[in-house]
Amino acid sequence: MESIRTIFYDDPKLDGPIFVEGLPGVGNVGKLAAEHLLDQIEATKFADIFSKHFPPQVMVDDEGLIKLVNNELYYSKGEGKRPDLIVLVGDYQGLTPDGQYELSDHVLQIAKKYGASRIYTLGGYGVGKMVEKPRVLGAATDKELVEEMKALGVIFSKGEPGSGIVGASGLLLGLGKTYGMRAVCLMGETSGYFVDPKGAEAVLRVLADILKVEIDFSALKDKAEQIDLITSKIKEIEAPPEPRKEDLGYIG
Amino acid sequence: MESIRTIFYDDPKLDGPIFVEGLPGVGNVGKLAAEHLLDQIEATKFADIFSKHFPPQVMVDDEGLIKLVNNELYYSKGEGKRPDLIVLVGDYQGLTPDGQYELSDHVLQIAKKYGASRIYTLGGYGVGKMVEKPRVLGAATDKELVEEMKALGVIFSKGEPGSGIVGASGLLLGLGKTYGMRAVCLMGETSGYFVDPKGAEAVLRVLADILKVEIDFSALKDKAEQIDLITSKIKEIEAPPEPRKEDLGYIG
Amino acid sequence: MESIRTIFYDDPKLDGPIFVEGLPGVGNVGKLAAEHLLDQIEATKFADIFSKHFPPQVMVDDEGLIKLVNNELYYSKGEGKRPDLIVLVGDYQGLTPDGQYELSDHVLQIAKKYGASRIYTLGGYGVGKMVEKPRVLGAATDKELVEEMKALGVIFSKGEPGSGIVGASGLLLGLGKTYGMRAVCLMGETSGYFVDPKGAEAVLRVLADILKVEIDFSALKDKAEQIDLITSKIKEIEAPPEPRKEDLGYIG
Amino acid sequence: MESIRTIFYDDPKLDGPIFVEGLPGVGNVGKLAAEHLLDQIEATKFADIFSKHFPPQVMVDDEGLIKLVNNELYYSKGEGKRPDLIVLVGDYQGLTPDGQYELSDHVLQIAKKYGASRIYTLGGYGVGKMVEKPRVLGAATDKELVEEMKALGVIFSKGEPGSGIVGASGLLLGLGKTYGMRAVCLMGETSGYFVDPKGAEAVLRVLADILKVEIDFSALKDKAEQIDLITSKIKEIEAPPEPRKEDLGYIG
Repeated sequence: MESIRTIFYDDPKLDGPIFVEGLPGVGNVGKLAAEHLLDQIEATKFADIFSKHFPPQVMVDDEGLIKLVNNELYYSKGEGKRPDLIVLVGDYQGLTPDGQYELSDHVLQIAKKYGASRIYTLGGYGVGKMVEKPRVLGAATDKELVEEMKALGVIFSKGEPGSGIVGASGLLLGLGKTYGMRAVCLMGETSGYFVDPKGAEAVLRVLADILKVEIDFSALKDKAEQIDLITSKIKEIEAPPEPRKEDLGYIG
Repeated sequence: MESIRTIFYDDPKLDGPIFVEGLPGVGNVGKLAAEHLLDQIEATKFADIFSKHFPPQVMVDDEGLIKLVNNELYYSKGEGKRPDLIVLVGDYQGLTPDGQYELSDHVLQIAKKYGASRIYTLGGYGVGKMVEKPRVLGAATDKELVEEMKALGVIFSKGEPGSGIVGASGLLLGLGKTYGMRAVCLMGETSGYFVDPKGAEAVLRVLADILKVEIDFSALKDKAEQIDLITSKIKEIEAPPEPRKEDLGYIG
Repeated sequence: MESIRTIFYDDPKLDGPIFVEGLPGVGNVGKLAAEHLLDQIEATKFADIFSKHFPPQVMVDDEGLIKLVNNELYYSKGEGKRPDLIVLVGDYQGLTPDGQYELSDHVLQIAKKYGASRIYTLGGYGVGKMVEKPRVLGAATDKELVEEMKALGVIFSKGEPGSGIVGASGLLLGLGKTYGMRAVCLMGETSGYFVDPKGAEAVLRVLADILKVEIDFSALKDKAEQIDLITSKIKEIEAPPEPRKEDLGYIG
Repeated sequence: MESIRTIFYDDPKLDGPIFVEGLPGVGNVGKLAAEHLLDQIEATKFADIFSKHFPPQVMVDDEGLIKLVNNELYYSKGEGKRPDLIVLVGDYQGLTPDGQYELSDHVLQIAKKYGASRIYTLGGYGVGKMVEKPRVLGAATDKELVEEMKALGVIFSKGEPGSGIVGASGLLLGLGKTYGMRAVCLMGETSGYFVDPKGAEAVLRVLADILKVEIDFSALKDKAEQIDLITSKIKEIEAPPEPRKEDLGYIG
């Protein structure tokens, strides 16, 4: 069996699309942001990515139907000033370093094939404590992109993230750069303890600005309130667990 | 050396056989059920599957003869209303995600080659506490199969299994679906602490109904009694160990 | 780089040689026995086996010279009734199941090429307590060999080893059987806590009988006395550590 | 994606260059020494080595620019008596044994291609306690090199390092030897608890002697003082942690 099996359902014609990645990671910030973006625009799934680098697992939905764990590619034709988009979401990142590299490289080949003009990867930046107003930190493949992001309020802070960016959000930039592709990673601050819709909102606000798309954040806000409710209840029962050190600087 | 070495001893002519999988997993429910099925019908081993994805281990029987750990394929020609069968049993599942995918894909190619009309995978659903009357939960590749199973008393319960189905019992459905193969997973409730003949009986009762085969359950009942005896003795000595969290939702 | 790199220094003409394996394992029984055999006969190294499945490590000898960790093949032409021999010794077994399978298969191809008429693998059988007079247990690929070994005092005991034989000593039998090669595993009882020259002597006494070779055991006896001295000193200081459960049934 | 992707920026003409390796390891002795050497000579990066055997990670610099983790090759044309040099430095060693072997073999092919006349690998020798005046221990591929190193004050001590040399510093010697390449490993004593510029200085003093290059050690001395300051502060707060046994003999 091949390492990665991608099944295409459509071969969209896209005009220099922006490629957006939001896979699970710290606080699931990137995943939440990308999925909320997909909820807010008209988007069509055009490919399923299955892989031996994902867990050997199927999900079961409320009707008892199974789905092999995967990553999924959506496209959305631009409207008004908004450019064409490709969005990558999914259940998992690759389980091993080898798998991470293979999957990121595979996805970059697809991005290239569709003429992606730029890549935005979305992730969380774990700070190990509750964050009231999450900042959005950035990293990029070239100086021009850094300046562009700064102008949008993205923070480039010396020594942050100190341990670099681990996983797909980092690799798509790193491997992309070896192909001459231009890319930005947007990282929303998050405690890292819980799924964090607040961090996702912060990241998505920046991205919406970039993509010139209107986003209704009420669903994310509702989720954030639910999480706040749960975490405040947990606090009453017990102090939050100490984060494992290795988790703090991890960015999905 | 190849990753998987399958040695065929026979090339049976089968008529749209039902493919049944019962490999080791939670409570060994699937393995016990499939092996008991083989005890109750006339079945012939037609292939041994060896693999680098299994442990580097031989079993030693009571006469001192070794057997390299493997998976085995049996066939059984139908009788009366019972259709032709292929049954997969074995010592181990693949040790790694990679191995799980490769082995499941390999087995599906064999199922396809013999024109398997449907796949039933058997497993346990670990609930983390002793179960008096185990339910049989289901998952399937399409809605029609869900309805068919419901009519046979299989339970499709929202949020169960919450973490999906891990291992061969899940992958055969997930990968099978990508090949357009129709498949059902039957999961017998089990504590997950012990080998569980009760869970196996529950699963096999449903399967016997589907396959229109008469099963004598007395041997399984005897095993269940032995297990009950052992567990009650253990209880006298000490409280059962806390299950590891990650085991609870695992389904073999 | 290839997975296994074997460098041959000689291409000996051998007449149906007996293949003997003694790699590190429980109590290093097999390794000690095979190395002592090599000390007692005239033997010539004819191949080095290097592999990515071994640790990335070099040994440093007393003169500061390095040696990449490896397995080594020796041959010895028969004398009198003693048949020709090939002996496999080495620093490590493969680190992963994958590596174990690849290395054992590789070695079997070499054994085949030289027309090996029979394989003896040497290992320890960990019993988790100090053993005064170690028995030698056996396992084999066919009944005739079992009978032959019984006649030499090798013990075939129902349920021993309960967990089968793990590692090269098992795989060479298991994979060998799939090639129609006849093989025996001889396992010397050992506590499993220490390197065990006593277990090695017991195994080698049986093998010497089979190979019709005279062995002087004084060097092994000396080593055994040294170990006894060390272990008795340790006992004075503290009780021996509880063996890890998974080690007990392991046989190298 | 290929396992190793090396991008060459230059194809220097070199005359029997000396190949020097300094990758991360115990006390980062080898890495510090090689990087300090590069600071002190005129050297040009001519290749980036990326690999699936490194972590899936990008570094982020103070300006927000990313760099995929890698190994890097520098060359330096000789001056006066100093020969031409190739220097290998990097963020990581291969994560797995497999990766270690592949990367070392890959690097040796490059060293061969440029006609490297000798290899020096630099590492730390963890002794598990603070070292005031670190010795430099050696290991080599042949006796002549041992004698040559002894004459330079390198210590070859029976039983040190007892567990051999693990990682790139060992493999480059071990694999190199199978290609007939001559190589020396220089190991600076270090506690193994901290990054250790003192150990690096000791190693580099020997290497500078060999390469006939003048080195200004003030920057390394400054770093050593900073580390001394930090460690003395830590000592005030708490006793240093017990080293893990497996770390002690490890040499990067």
